[in-house]
Amino acid sequence: MLIEQITPIHNPALAAQLKHAIDHKTKPLGSLGRLEGLALQIGLIQQTATPTVERPAMVIYAADHGVAEERISLYPPCVTRQMVENFLAGGAASSVLARQNGFEVVIVDGGVAHDFGARADLVDCKVRHGSRNFVHEPAMTHDECALAMTRAKAVVDGLAGNVVAFGEKGIGNTTPSAALMHLMTGIPLAECVGAGTGLNREGIAHKQRVIERALARHGYPQDPLAVMATYGGIEIAMMAAGMLAAAARRKVVLVDGFIATSALLVALKLQPALIDYCVFSHCSDEHGHTQMLQYLGVSPLLHLNLRLGEATGCALALPYLQAAVNFLSEMATFEAAAVSEALA
Amino acid sequence: MLIEQITPIHNPALAAQLKHAIDHKTKPLGSLGRLEGLALQIGLIQQTATPTVERPAMVIYAADHGVAEERISLYPPCVTRQMVENFLAGGAASSVLARQNGFEVVIVDGGVAHDFGARADLVDCKVRHGSRNFVHEPAMTHDECALAMTRAKAVVDGLAGNVVAFGEKGIGNTTPSAALMHLMTGIPLAECVGAGTGLNREGIAHKQRVIERALARHGYPQDPLAVMATYGGIEIAMMAAGMLAAAARRKVVLVDGFIATSALLVALKLQPALIDYCVFSHCSDEHGHTQMLQYLGVSPLLHLNLRLGEATGCALALPYLQAAVNFLSEMATFEAAAVSEALA
Repeated sequence: MLIEQITPIHNPALAAQLKHAIDHKTKPLGSLGRLEGLALQIGLIQQTATPTVERPAMVIYAADHGVAEERISLYPPCVTRQMVENFLAGGAASSVLARQNGFEVVIVDGGVAHDFGARADLVDCKVRHGSRNFVHEPAMTHDECALAMTRAKAVVDGLAGNVVAFGEKGIGNTTPSAALMHLMTGIPLAECVGAGTGLNREGIAHKQRVIERALARHGYPQDPLAVMATYGGIEIAMMAAGMLAAAARRKVVLVDGFIATSALLVALKLQPALIDYCVFSHCSDEHGHTQMLQYLGVSPLLHLNLRLGEATGCALALPYLQAAVNFLSEMATFEAAAVSEALA
Repeated sequence: MLIEQITPIHNPALAAQLKHAIDHKTKPLGSLGRLEGLALQIGLIQQTATPTVERPAMVIYAADHGVAEERISLYPPCVTRQMVENFLAGGAASSVLARQNGFEVVIVDGGVAHDFGARADLVDCKVRHGSRNFVHEPAMTHDECALAMTRAKAVVDGLAGNVVAFGEKGIGNTTPSAALMHLMTGIPLAECVGAGTGLNREGIAHKQRVIERALARHGYPQDPLAVMATYGGIEIAMMAAGMLAAAARRKVVLVDGFIATSALLVALKLQPALIDYCVFSHCSDEHGHTQMLQYLGVSPLLHLNLRLGEATGCALALPYLQAAVNFLSEMATFEAAAVSEALA
């Protein structure tokens, strides 16, 4: 069982060994700030005093959303498939940033409402042509949600590297993510709903009413998988499963913005130890992400006012993971460099 | 004259052209956050709609400080020369991060209290064996300060690339930097003095008294160069001149932490337009840096709790400059990718 393979990274002996190595590098104690904590975390994830970043992968799950027919996005649903083509052509923001940072990119059709046909560069995991409109019926059946998760896991199981960034594409998907945030955290819905691609105040109020109608119909299921099936989306369920699969193989999970974190909220209900494997790449400008991160008690690495998704924040955070393992492996110690240590 | 070659980057026609290019990329308007502002700034600095990052250089000026004899650092002054050797051997934090990010590294002996002899990999700009102890006499004479600045400029004039990161090494140098911050901004001294390499409360109070003794002796000169000569340091004067020289050649100036920003405060008094060329890489954990940045009205890119100097923050910020020019040059437009634009 997937979730039972994930254990906390707690290891006092290894932690002490890593801390000793970090503290004897030629720098004032603690002066590399967040990089020091990252080096420790990656070492503990990989269970080694000499952690590495090898063949980082960016997995982007794409799917459409029935709820998009409620006009909760500035963009028409056909943009999901158009952007999949843009990823495959290498012209999207995340394509550019993935190239810059050396990611292997895996584009997954989880449930785009379009037939791409056989494509060498697109992984076909299609569960159905878009989720259902959850205002009227659950977004997915239990079986569809389970199938999405199984297929998403298989994609991650096929990755060779030790770092995985998770991204998504799905016009309308801040709406299910806001619903998931509300259901998983209990934070009032109004604080969970944001502008997405750029809604004005009226658009945001409409989006909130759409979710309220769904809540009135389906209520508050107790089981996190039922919440995901009812209010989630195919690519969001896939991200949740992908993150669990990566942690089960002791890979670093790079968490992107609002939608990725909403997937994580569900995954964490299934296996709280997953959080030990997560590096929170950035704080999105999407309303609600700050509170999601506070709810989890975590500090993201970057504050660059991004609100794009597609694992763009993850791509930009990879240099910090690289810097963390590099300083640990390449910096001289006081002793080796014959540098005097601090005076008593 | 150096400072007259620096002009504001204001250019409404080019700014409009860049803004148009940024806004037509396949992403929601504004969704790449800080990267969008960076792309605009770098374009304006380079006066082109197709900005680039070419051959970034990291210049590290090293010098000793007479005031270190007041025991205002946890480390003995010999660490300055030991760390220069560490830079040359590639084992310092900034060596590792510069390698990772593709910087050409230039190590400059501005005034280390040690004779290195002829060294192929060390640029000899030595003005004297360390500055004087400013508790008793000005740190530099006017001529020494001018010589430091002339030599620092020559180093930058020899660089081929279009981005320069400025770093320093000089045991004790947060003390002159705190004095410069106080004199240049009027912010109370207590808010300018911090822990440096890790002083405790007592050590910080002692450091403040050392600066107060110097202030009682030398007062508050009006001329920024007199402030630099009296209270500064050789490598700090060099950083100020290096930044001006880089801006004069329309290179991007990457500003590091507390000490680099104190040098910039002096340089800005000489030429306020310099700020247009500056990218503020990070907010240091050194007490005072946050207020320095607020005084300048700028937002740094990174908040990683670094307090190491040596241009480590600059090295870590370079991927954002690269990302900014990359998205501008490599991302598809809505039209080119046949992606539908936002609904009206």
